Amino acid sequence: MNEEHYSVQGFRAAGIVAGIKRSGNRDICLIVSDRDCSATGVFTSNRFAAAPVILSQEHLASNPAAIRAVVINSGNANACTGDRGAEDARRMAEEVAAQCGIKPSQVLVASTGIIGELLPIEQVTRGIEQGAESLHEFGWGLAAQAIMTTDTVPKCISRSFETSEGRITLLGIVKGSGMIHPNMATLLGCIVTDAAVEPDALKAALGNAVKRTFNRLTVDGDTSTNDTLFLLANGAAGNELITEDSDMFEAFQYELYALCEDLVRRLAADGEGATKIVHVHVEGGKTEHDAAVIAEAIARSLLVKTAIFGNDPNWGRIVCAIGYSNADFNPDGVSVRIGPHWVFQDGMPADFEAGEVSRYLKENTEIMLLVTLRDGDASADFWTCDISYDYVKINADYHT
Amino acid sequence: MNEEHYSVQGFRAAGIVAGIKRSGNRDICLIVSDRDCSATGVFTSNRFAAAPVILSQEHLASNPAAIRAVVINSGNANACTGDRGAEDARRMAEEVAAQCGIKPSQVLVASTGIIGELLPIEQVTRGIEQGAESLHEFGWGLAAQAIMTTDTVPKCISRSFETSEGRITLLGIVKGSGMIHPNMATLLGCIVTDAAVEPDALKAALGNAVKRTFNRLTVDGDTSTNDTLFLLANGAAGNELITEDSDMFEAFQYELYALCEDLVRRLAADGEGATKIVHVHVEGGKTEHDAAVIAEAIARSLLVKTAIFGNDPNWGRIVCAIGYSNADFNPDGVSVRIGPHWVFQDGMPADFEAGEVSRYLKENTEIMLLVTLRDGDASADFWTCDISYDYVKINADYHT
Repeated sequence: MNEEHYSVQGFRAAGIVAGIKRSGNRDICLIVSDRDCSATGVFTSNRFAAAPVILSQEHLASNPAAIRAVVINSGNANACTGDRGAEDARRMAEEVAAQCGIKPSQVLVASTGIIGELLPIEQVTRGIEQGAESLHEFGWGLAAQAIMTTDTVPKCISRSFETSEGRITLLGIVKGSGMIHPNMATLLGCIVTDAAVEPDALKAALGNAVKRTFNRLTVDGDTSTNDTLFLLANGAAGNELITEDSDMFEAFQYELYALCEDLVRRLAADGEGATKIVHVHVEGGKTEHDAAVIAEAIARSLLVKTAIFGNDPNWGRIVCAIGYSNADFNPDGVSVRIGPHWVFQDGMPADFEAGEVSRYLKENTEIMLLVTLRDGDASADFWTCDISYDYVKINADYHT
Repeated sequence: MNEEHYSVQGFRAAGIVAGIKRSGNRDICLIVSDRDCSATGVFTSNRFAAAPVILSQEHLASNPAAIRAVVINSGNANACTGDRGAEDARRMAEEVAAQCGIKPSQVLVASTGIIGELLPIEQVTRGIEQGAESLHEFGWGLAAQAIMTTDTVPKCISRSFETSEGRITLLGIVKGSGMIHPNMATLLGCIVTDAAVEPDALKAALGNAVKRTFNRLTVDGDTSTNDTLFLLANGAAGNELITEDSDMFEAFQYELYALCEDLVRRLAADGEGATKIVHVHVEGGKTEHDAAVIAEAIARSLLVKTAIFGNDPNWGRIVCAIGYSNADFNPDGVSVRIGPHWVFQDGMPADFEAGEVSRYLKENTEIMLLVTLRDGDASADFWTCDISYDYVKINADYHT
């Protein structure tokens, strides 16, 4: 299904040009539900959390079951902007509320872009007005465009599942690229669903999904001031309210996880300057923590990421990253596979054809690195991308 | 003083071509003392510690006051090489012992280069024989060449200080470039001194110096399987044995620290593809740990390092790194200076001329980033380099 035909009952979306970005690209995203939503969010742990992050946390705390709208601007992060920044975030919520006939505290706000510059607030409020006029059931493709910064493609994914009470749909838009790193939220995005879900169940489901998806993604190891992921459930599907004890909870949680995993792959594939996605899977770990720590060390290693960019079967760098990972494991039980090729077995180099591994790296855009341990049954995944000349170029030139 | 005239009483050194490196460059370094040395070392914490690392730790444990020689090969790390690797490391010690008329357990061994390939041991032993014939009081420049891998310049520094008991000299050779990251030893190197120092005092002095120098250096965040730093003191200066309680201990420790700081600057300046050294100084921290954690977050940030490469006064990335550092600090008391220019003051953007900051970044090869906090009196330094296109190029092409 083409994203131009994506829709979720009871929601409308818009993405318009407000003039915040010098490029003239879309920069205001508006999402509105025709009824109250259960809502939750995960946010950056950065101590310089941006003004909209703080405001949205307040609104979620006061209205966990009555959120109606989300507004996101790109091109300016409204971070390190002091009292004026806090005032601007509030004005964004007020303008959405005025346009939609709801209360400001029913609006969630997010911003992404350059840090430390004041928002051009008049353009932003005019943009919100225009966005409210452009809201459309099929507006998700434009909404996804409006949250992009250095992303090269918009990221919008929808999935539906059938239940005994009818079809339930989830839809997510995200932006990523640089500054993507665990804890949290590694990105900016919004997921909406027409399921009826009680706020605590929504929070639990999102926490679980994020832990194994967005928090297992790294592009450059930096965690921004603005990372935010919202989840809104408006109940338009008419199902019985899902709680953590419901039979439906597990199915909903799985579908949310699967949507998040798909979004994370898109983010990794569009990492700044990336030519390849790298999926690291570790199994046989003593605990999930140990498996995840090893997977993260590999995914964060610049030496591994540049070797993959260069189609270089330099397994020593993978083994080296495992070795410094601080995980608890037995070195003699470590084996490593690059795609279908075992390069390291039980703590020793394997007999393999370097040319074949190099060809695998060259011919695939999703690279699978498998690490097997002999310490237990735990496994973990991590996603990243290679590091190319273009990563350096994009980030050397972004500001000026 | 030119490094061709560096010497330390009682020590001789050599650097020769054994044929391990395909390039035909020097690849065996031999250092011999004419009398027993107190000795100590700091080593990688990587779980896949290379065979020579394990052997040297054994020899230091059995002969802390009777080490006589160091042998280092470059071009091959002898890591992940199993029983044969352990045997090869022992053969290197045995060959040095046979050539110099000492015991194998009086020899320290180190290797650096590609991981997972067996040493060409016949070439190595012939090289050691040739090295023993080439030993020279002024051989340090060649010795420094023989431990290089992707380094572009050899790194050899000497410093002397006068005491009431005469002059004491310290001399260090190191290699660095990629895979330089704290804990430990971030590099391969050997420091020798003609001071008489008791082994425990030597260990304490090196631990202290490394904690504030080599462990505060990052190039790419990777810690190798082979990181090793040796320190040998042969007492040829004739001073009274320095213990931790001696009056001389503090002076010796300071000189060792100063030598290490100098070596670290050279390493940062020659980081793979680096065009600039970056010195991060954090002061006003609650504890030294908090100051160091902030300094490290900035020094490790790829976004900061690429911005500096691009002469881009993007202070938002510095502030962002401070924010995600996990240090305990008050965000409203944070100020940031790039060179002489305040760009962020007390938690808010400062009024500055972007063009001037950009010019500072462009015209200097050692960039100073100063962070002041309002949390206490603790300070910490960290050194790194910028990340350029060439970093990616060097590391995409190293193996194949």
